[in-house]
Amino acid sequence: MTAVLEVPEGYAPHDVESLRGYLAEIDGLRQVLGGDPAAWTIEEVGDGNLNLVFKVRGSGAGVAVKQALPYVRLVGESWPLPLSRAHYEHLALSQEGRHAPGLVPAILHYDADLALIVMELLEPHVILRRGMIAGTVYPRFVEDITTFTAETLFHTSDLALAAADKKDLVAAFAGNSALCKITEDLIFTEPYMIADNNRWTSPQLDPYAARLRADGDLKVAISRLKLRFLGDAQALIHGDLHTGSIMVTEADTRVIDPEFAVMGPMGFDLGALVANLLLNYFAQDGHEESPGARDDYRAWVLETTEGVWAGFRAKFLALWRGAAAAGDGYPAALFQGPLGAVRLDQERKAYLDRLYRDTLGFGAAKMIRRIVGLAHNIDLEWIEDPEVRARCEARALTLAREMMVNPGAFPSIGDVAEAAAGLRGWEPRLG
Amino acid sequence: MTAVLEVPEGYAPHDVESLRGYLAEIDGLRQVLGGDPAAWTIEEVGDGNLNLVFKVRGSGAGVAVKQALPYVRLVGESWPLPLSRAHYEHLALSQEGRHAPGLVPAILHYDADLALIVMELLEPHVILRRGMIAGTVYPRFVEDITTFTAETLFHTSDLALAAADKKDLVAAFAGNSALCKITEDLIFTEPYMIADNNRWTSPQLDPYAARLRADGDLKVAISRLKLRFLGDAQALIHGDLHTGSIMVTEADTRVIDPEFAVMGPMGFDLGALVANLLLNYFAQDGHEESPGARDDYRAWVLETTEGVWAGFRAKFLALWRGAAAAGDGYPAALFQGPLGAVRLDQERKAYLDRLYRDTLGFGAAKMIRRIVGLAHNIDLEWIEDPEVRARCEARALTLAREMMVNPGAFPSIGDVAEAAAGLRGWEPRLG
Repeated sequence: MTAVLEVPEGYAPHDVESLRGYLAEIDGLRQVLGGDPAAWTIEEVGDGNLNLVFKVRGSGAGVAVKQALPYVRLVGESWPLPLSRAHYEHLALSQEGRHAPGLVPAILHYDADLALIVMELLEPHVILRRGMIAGTVYPRFVEDITTFTAETLFHTSDLALAAADKKDLVAAFAGNSALCKITEDLIFTEPYMIADNNRWTSPQLDPYAARLRADGDLKVAISRLKLRFLGDAQALIHGDLHTGSIMVTEADTRVIDPEFAVMGPMGFDLGALVANLLLNYFAQDGHEESPGARDDYRAWVLETTEGVWAGFRAKFLALWRGAAAAGDGYPAALFQGPLGAVRLDQERKAYLDRLYRDTLGFGAAKMIRRIVGLAHNIDLEWIEDPEVRARCEARALTLAREMMVNPGAFPSIGDVAEAAAGLRGWEPRLG
Repeated sequence: MTAVLEVPEGYAPHDVESLRGYLAEIDGLRQVLGGDPAAWTIEEVGDGNLNLVFKVRGSGAGVAVKQALPYVRLVGESWPLPLSRAHYEHLALSQEGRHAPGLVPAILHYDADLALIVMELLEPHVILRRGMIAGTVYPRFVEDITTFTAETLFHTSDLALAAADKKDLVAAFAGNSALCKITEDLIFTEPYMIADNNRWTSPQLDPYAARLRADGDLKVAISRLKLRFLGDAQALIHGDLHTGSIMVTEADTRVIDPEFAVMGPMGFDLGALVANLLLNYFAQDGHEESPGARDDYRAWVLETTEGVWAGFRAKFLALWRGAAAAGDGYPAALFQGPLGAVRLDQERKAYLDRLYRDTLGFGAAKMIRRIVGLAHNIDLEWIEDPEVRARCEARALTLAREMMVNPGAFPSIGDVAEAAAGLRGWEPRLG
């Protein structure tokens, strides 16, 4: 074990006091924080699964400090994880910040040896997932997240980049394989087999989990999606774009934590959004104060789900129709004249139809893994009554299975929303 | 221009005499060649488009020396091309030699600074294309080339490799973008537009070339194939697997010149084989001594075309059903028990059906570029009568267009062979 946990020279995890000294030595940060370093308040708040996270406040602005540990924090030293993930997070944040300015936290400092990133402190932002569990409406969210996805995915794809530049990006992220392996195992493999990591609301969902493991069509479908994730370098994806990776206020949206970033299929990011919105939708039954109290909120969640796809599609199309479409894919020289323009625009829509189907498939994978795999969502976990929780989960699983195996049954995102609404009226037979 | 042609310190192109001195200094090579270096015969024989190639013979064995030039030899210094292609060729030869031993030339020496590879001299081998123009049957060819393609493609795919190892391969070949760019331009783009590089048998094929440039379905199809080439890292492909990259005797087969190697779609290599066999088939009308004299040979060429796909498919399936299928794609744990085994085997066949359609599409692209693009095949070029040549070419173009736009019309490779045979009876209307 010690061998695996070896860390590079110069690395040591910070605690509150060592961090104070470290930050005080960096001129720019000392100025941003302001006042006497001894008076800074520093708290370790990492409630994620992987890293140390500190909030630091001075008399000026606050900063957030994220430092990778050489293992998975949630599990401990028995699950080593390379510090290089901080490098990939920094690289992805830089790309995202360039293409979607203002929608990721500003980077103030990066220390490769310490695997440490200092960012602006996002206040009074909350994690979108928590806000949505509380039933809060975020009027900016659809507008911002569709800008984020359209801009980051388009500008790192073959539609915008010369092939050599895109291959450079592929090579730059190829080393992030340990993080990708987590995705490959926990999302694309383990939920469909007997695995120690799996858990679900038991015994209520036992028959559902058993059916997943016996579902040949579903296992072929998830395996095809896994193959896409392994080999299809479509664009720079965030790689973990659920509602826990988004911080919001009513007026602002920021995407955080891109340490799973890799060149992969765009539908993986878009599916993560759709999946986590749908999970929240199904979970509302477990959070409303009285039956029907969250009806308006539920409607907003479904509108948001539809808006995320529809808005992304419109913005991505607009980018492709504009001057940024200078990549080596679909070269303009092949589609000259009015007939060429018509044909290319038909193909743009066909491309987005394919991406929509990918989104349903990857989204389904993300829903299933949150219900029968290792990492669950608090949207559902916080429902205390296991019968209520299992009913929400069974509905989500049922929709997800159809989305993955039979995406053609949902010709538009509105059909997905309609199916979700319909499933709320269904009483699953629990184990 | 000088700036682009800058070469690393230590690089200089060899001539016959400087090469003699260079080889004599390397103990291993001096022993292989044998005798007094002054008595070695050295000839420069590079008849390819890109590099210097020397044959060196001593009193012992002979060696072949391939050295990259910092530009495209065929064109001159106005078309610079990086020396790094020797690095990628060496890397690919090493991989291929590991997975398909005996089917590539043995590497005797590699000098990165000089961009120079010393290989065994293949004698009395001839280039397959030349042998096929002469009407020679090669009884080992199908057996050997299907072993080469199945072994090299399978073992560098997600079916055999752990994801991290495959990503290492992707990163290792990502820098070969200048060579890939040639493919992207000359195969996937220029034949479908007006471009200075294009040429065809004119005026006979003028209407055919014009129809290609006006064919919206074809331009969408080639653009989708290009996108696959740009982003789908399915396996390590040779990247230029035509009949000019294969040396044969009746008893031996060797694949040479993998400098275009990259992690890309498998169908690109398989399509190159099918395409160049079909081009040779159509070209036979221009080479036979009297009408019908090559009927038996034509039948062998079509059998060979069918055998290349069928043999590849059988060997690839066998590998996937065996112990080598230890990759992260389609994990065995998901397909346990007799039902799982049946379902996985159905999916293996479905995977190969998809690969067959890819093969038709990429093959069609390779046929078209050889008739209306920059680089032509001597199979057709050596037909002196432009009317005869254009008839052969029009038939090939017509088949290729259908293969690319309408692959479903050819459910099996036998249907392709049948269509080719049928088109021989068709008198194209020439311009």
